[in-house]
Amino acid sequence: MQNEPLDGFFNPQTIAVIGASDRPHSVGGAIFSNIKNGTFTGKVFPVNNKNASVQGQKAFPSVGDISEKVDLAVIAAPAPAVLPILDDCARAGAGGAVIVSSGFKESGKQGKKDFSAIQKLARTSGMRILGPNCLGFANPRAGLNASFAPQSPLPGSIAFISQSGALCGTLLDWSLRDNIGFSHFVSIGSAADIDFAEMIEYFSRDENVGSILLYMESLNDGPRFIAAARDFCQTKPIVCLKAGANSAGAAAAASHTGAIAGNDKVFSAVFERAGVIRAATISEFYNYARTLNHCKKPQGRRLAIITNAGGSGVISTDFLAQNGGELSKLATKTIKTLASTLPPAASRANPIDVLGDGAPEHYRAAVSACLKDKNVDGIMAIISPQAVTQSKKIAEGIAGIEDIAAKPVFISFMGAARVAEGVEIFRRAGIPTYRTPEKAIACFLGLAKWQKDLKRAKKAFSRVRFDFDSAKNTAAEVFAAAAEKKQSIIDGEAARKILQAYGLPGNPAHPAKTAGQAATIAKKIGFPVALKLQSGLAHKTELGGVRLNLDTAAEVKKAFNEIEKNAEKHLRAKDFREITVEKMVDKKYELIVGAKIDPLFGPVIVFGAGGTAVEIFDDTAIGLPPLDAAGAKELMAKTKIFKLLKGYRNIKGADIEELAGVMARFSRLPLDFPQIKEIDINPLAVDQTGIVALDAKIIPEK
Amino acid sequence: MQNEPLDGFFNPQTIAVIGASDRPHSVGGAIFSNIKNGTFTGKVFPVNNKNASVQGQKAFPSVGDISEKVDLAVIAAPAPAVLPILDDCARAGAGGAVIVSSGFKESGKQGKKDFSAIQKLARTSGMRILGPNCLGFANPRAGLNASFAPQSPLPGSIAFISQSGALCGTLLDWSLRDNIGFSHFVSIGSAADIDFAEMIEYFSRDENVGSILLYMESLNDGPRFIAAARDFCQTKPIVCLKAGANSAGAAAAASHTGAIAGNDKVFSAVFERAGVIRAATISEFYNYARTLNHCKKPQGRRLAIITNAGGSGVISTDFLAQNGGELSKLATKTIKTLASTLPPAASRANPIDVLGDGAPEHYRAAVSACLKDKNVDGIMAIISPQAVTQSKKIAEGIAGIEDIAAKPVFISFMGAARVAEGVEIFRRAGIPTYRTPEKAIACFLGLAKWQKDLKRAKKAFSRVRFDFDSAKNTAAEVFAAAAEKKQSIIDGEAARKILQAYGLPGNPAHPAKTAGQAATIAKKIGFPVALKLQSGLAHKTELGGVRLNLDTAAEVKKAFNEIEKNAEKHLRAKDFREITVEKMVDKKYELIVGAKIDPLFGPVIVFGAGGTAVEIFDDTAIGLPPLDAAGAKELMAKTKIFKLLKGYRNIKGADIEELAGVMARFSRLPLDFPQIKEIDINPLAVDQTGIVALDAKIIPEK
Repeated sequence: MQNEPLDGFFNPQTIAVIGASDRPHSVGGAIFSNIKNGTFTGKVFPVNNKNASVQGQKAFPSVGDISEKVDLAVIAAPAPAVLPILDDCARAGAGGAVIVSSGFKESGKQGKKDFSAIQKLARTSGMRILGPNCLGFANPRAGLNASFAPQSPLPGSIAFISQSGALCGTLLDWSLRDNIGFSHFVSIGSAADIDFAEMIEYFSRDENVGSILLYMESLNDGPRFIAAARDFCQTKPIVCLKAGANSAGAAAAASHTGAIAGNDKVFSAVFERAGVIRAATISEFYNYARTLNHCKKPQGRRLAIITNAGGSGVISTDFLAQNGGELSKLATKTIKTLASTLPPAASRANPIDVLGDGAPEHYRAAVSACLKDKNVDGIMAIISPQAVTQSKKIAEGIAGIEDIAAKPVFISFMGAARVAEGVEIFRRAGIPTYRTPEKAIACFLGLAKWQKDLKRAKKAFSRVRFDFDSAKNTAAEVFAAAAEKKQSIIDGEAARKILQAYGLPGNPAHPAKTAGQAATIAKKIGFPVALKLQSGLAHKTELGGVRLNLDTAAEVKKAFNEIEKNAEKHLRAKDFREITVEKMVDKKYELIVGAKIDPLFGPVIVFGAGGTAVEIFDDTAIGLPPLDAAGAKELMAKTKIFKLLKGYRNIKGADIEELAGVMARFSRLPLDFPQIKEIDINPLAVDQTGIVALDAKIIPEK
Repeated sequence: MQNEPLDGFFNPQTIAVIGASDRPHSVGGAIFSNIKNGTFTGKVFPVNNKNASVQGQKAFPSVGDISEKVDLAVIAAPAPAVLPILDDCARAGAGGAVIVSSGFKESGKQGKKDFSAIQKLARTSGMRILGPNCLGFANPRAGLNASFAPQSPLPGSIAFISQSGALCGTLLDWSLRDNIGFSHFVSIGSAADIDFAEMIEYFSRDENVGSILLYMESLNDGPRFIAAARDFCQTKPIVCLKAGANSAGAAAAASHTGAIAGNDKVFSAVFERAGVIRAATISEFYNYARTLNHCKKPQGRRLAIITNAGGSGVISTDFLAQNGGELSKLATKTIKTLASTLPPAASRANPIDVLGDGAPEHYRAAVSACLKDKNVDGIMAIISPQAVTQSKKIAEGIAGIEDIAAKPVFISFMGAARVAEGVEIFRRAGIPTYRTPEKAIACFLGLAKWQKDLKRAKKAFSRVRFDFDSAKNTAAEVFAAAAEKKQSIIDGEAARKILQAYGLPGNPAHPAKTAGQAATIAKKIGFPVALKLQSGLAHKTELGGVRLNLDTAAEVKKAFNEIEKNAEKHLRAKDFREITVEKMVDKKYELIVGAKIDPLFGPVIVFGAGGTAVEIFDDTAIGLPPLDAAGAKELMAKTKIFKLLKGYRNIKGADIEELAGVMARFSRLPLDFPQIKEIDINPLAVDQTGIVALDAKIIPEK
């Protein structure tokens, strides 16, 4: 690898451990002995300004005293000592530094200040920094454990990056029991310099990395992460356990869209777009480690289940169906093979039941047949310990099948002591075993969905035919006028003009100064009409500012006077703008369409069931702009209301092509105007007669 | 215990094993040696019609040759030999028999016939029968393993009943590893005689049974199961893993209600009503076994989390909140105690973070403080193996707390080898440990919900004031008339009359013979009107048989002619009934209210979002009649649309009291008329102006 900025960091030839000591339980002492006790072939120097020797080796008072160039400095020192040491390292020309010390970003004013100083030093010196507040890292293939973890990971193909040092310890302990190996094992800490995105980029160019496991709490650079992850996921899977699903963010939203597109849901949308598999629990996350340890990618979601117990077959089938998978429809040839090899009473349909006394040769024959069947994307073999079950021979039989590696094969050996021998055989053969079949099926389906997302993401972006330049010009004028008036919400006619510019038709609202004028307008545009109070405030309905379905001039006048009275009661004078008259639009479906600039990832688009349904049914989906027509349709298809929009039974739906066009055009708006904070179009009224935005507001950044 | 019909069965003094042999791997051989090798103090006789001795003990040619009275006969013989042997046993006055042999209910015509014969013999002879097609049972407290399972369960307080022999093997093997004990371990098989309900009744009178675990595939007697489970759950928990969630049944439904109240959803409603906790996966099921092994019942869903790692704390908090739990708000006293005992940097808020180097005394102090805090219903202690973590001492510290048994305490020791010592200490102390915190929290919340369901179930049923007698009389006349006409669907005016009788107002439909007559009626009742084709068929909208919002006489005539034409096109003459004119009712919300007679459990009631939403949003809930007003409100509150019905923001809702009354009255209808197969009221239109059934159909059993 050439010009790999992180290669020298993760593959150093010379390492200095600052804070190395004779005390085995001190952090510095542990790091030094971890490096020494491995098979690392480079040099390691202890740095200790008090002792002349450490663990029997000559110690140096400072990094500068080491005569050789130091590729990597590992710093285990109290927080206040770290910056001077870092300066030393930079002056000595160290290529990189790991700061394991805590006491920076997470602790107080001084800590945050020092954290910024570390970042600045990294940028100006070019020295690469991992941490602070981390465990360090291990490069098991190089026999290097530059961390104070009390164990060393096994070599393998999984790159693990964790923002929690404790989870490193947990995964490490589990992985040693289960013989799971890692290409890299990185505790990222507060990520002052080296972060998720850069490591993913680096790993994507390393053929020894077969997959990535991420434990993430926060992220520095959203767009770079998306690009890096998307790139990696083109060929290899990333699984992420993201903490903080219930973190704040949504609470402060100024619109429905803002509330819908809360931090966690945007992360989910980003993961889906990038092709990252999201694990729901720690257990699921670790089960992916089992799976990826010898990853074979399923090409689809059709599973063959082989079992020696009816119950586990039924439970597995339920779980598969409930989570979007399907049972393979076995080919005729497979069924014939099964008929000739299994006992007469065995079920040859899928799930294949080899019966309670399922013999090793029956398991072997069933797995073999499924490996050859084109309708099978993955094989789940369930072995319950029954009276005569020979766990060892069954495992040997399956593991010895010649083309066993041709497809993902998952084993659930449902027992403990009675199946231990069999589990061990599979472990050695690199075939993952799981305590229960559901755990395996969840991983199978996660990988299958990744492949599907990938195929979708590879489709060419089709051009959206529209004059976006003049749309932008027109909208810019409206935004400028609103900015001049210091409007905190752009709604009513101004919002309608912006949306109209992007080809999203609205319902003209005619301002009326008096009740009489409102009645005159109503007669002109035709009854029934609606009156709406236009103010700088949200929730006009709640303020008594909306009257719908007014059928006569008298009703219009009465409603006008009432709205005016409500406005006087509830609004400060400066908030009152005008009362408008609109022709009532009666369409079958109410949607919400919105946009939000996420602080981390930039613009996101929201689509879903609108009106009051938006808060009740929570039937919305989030996508990333720009959308082409196909992307818009995919986004819409994630909602339940889409079934109605397509036309349901003999009830006509909406013009889906036109709606997809509206969404594609709309998705450009937040990209063209980054000063937008949130946009809510609710409701967007649609049915077979057309598409009209009945109420829209645009909230600019202050 | 007196007059306990199953006591002699599960606590026999004399046992005969029919089919006992010298071959250790034969089923009969295994059963005989299992009984002999246990600490069972009674007598066991081998019965073998070929050999004079079995395993060194004198064998008898038949049960009748045994001179003593046999309490229990265990029959391991090929299916065709079973009935004659059973006859022998009955004649010899055996109290009970276990039939382990398969080849009955599950296999062919002869098998089903023999199965019926077994049932008949049980009923006529009074001999109790377990199986056929089962593993047998174990009574570990009596040292009795009357099964051919290759291991013997430990004694304890969990009664386990499984309809899968294989799952018995799995749970047994796991339980031996984890030191989980059982009061009874029963493989129920095809349940020809002894079934779930009777065993639950029996266990409810046994103080040695602390909880019940059920693995269920099917059920014989729904109502008896509900009663038995409800009774048991008053004081002790039942957890059920129910297989077959995706089984058929819904497909054949004749109405929306029928499709909604599919077999699996009815099971869920039944479990909730009875207080049975439903486990979602095998893994969750077994985690309940860990929990129940030393069950302390949480009094609420407020959890204190203690952790030595921020990440696991965040993940646990997320999981808790997403699944309906909440973090305890620690009392001031607790926070003070924590402040004086934990290191300064530790978090004293919940989750309590004892920091990465969390020492044994810190864990102990935090758990102690939470045990004393009245705001804490349960304690989750998470221990990640970090560099200095002393798993053994932490475990000793926590396990040694004097009042450790005062509340449910859950431990997640997140590691393998590095925490093995600590896990072992908790195991011996009877404190459950879990691989990940989410697994423990799921069990905590399941038990908390059980307690809550229990409190709700204990509320007195409040009388519904209504003259149900005359309602029944009126409805009976309409049913009789429909039966006379052999109507396969009762709808239109007939359905309206039945519902009206039960205090559920409908919208009168006026039959019109001609277009002109329809127009005349419309003028009389007032525009706008709707025209509807009344036929014996569902989905009249799809047949072009519904026209809404007709504003003029001309529109009415045109619509009438079109409906007539559509009817001619789509309907056979015998299905055409009439075309009716109704006044349009325009209300804000459309609900579905329905009833179905479930073949296993009897009547169930459905409530939810109606109109087209019913199939799209799937926002429905299922309850069991009769409902009082409180029960009706609880049922309704399970749906999302209930938020709108209660009044949302300043939008007026419906009269919830009146709606609850409607539901309570309606819930009587399927109880009063068991000949009803399904009822659909869709939509039931409601808002603040009232409640009207706009369309209803009642499908009687054929």
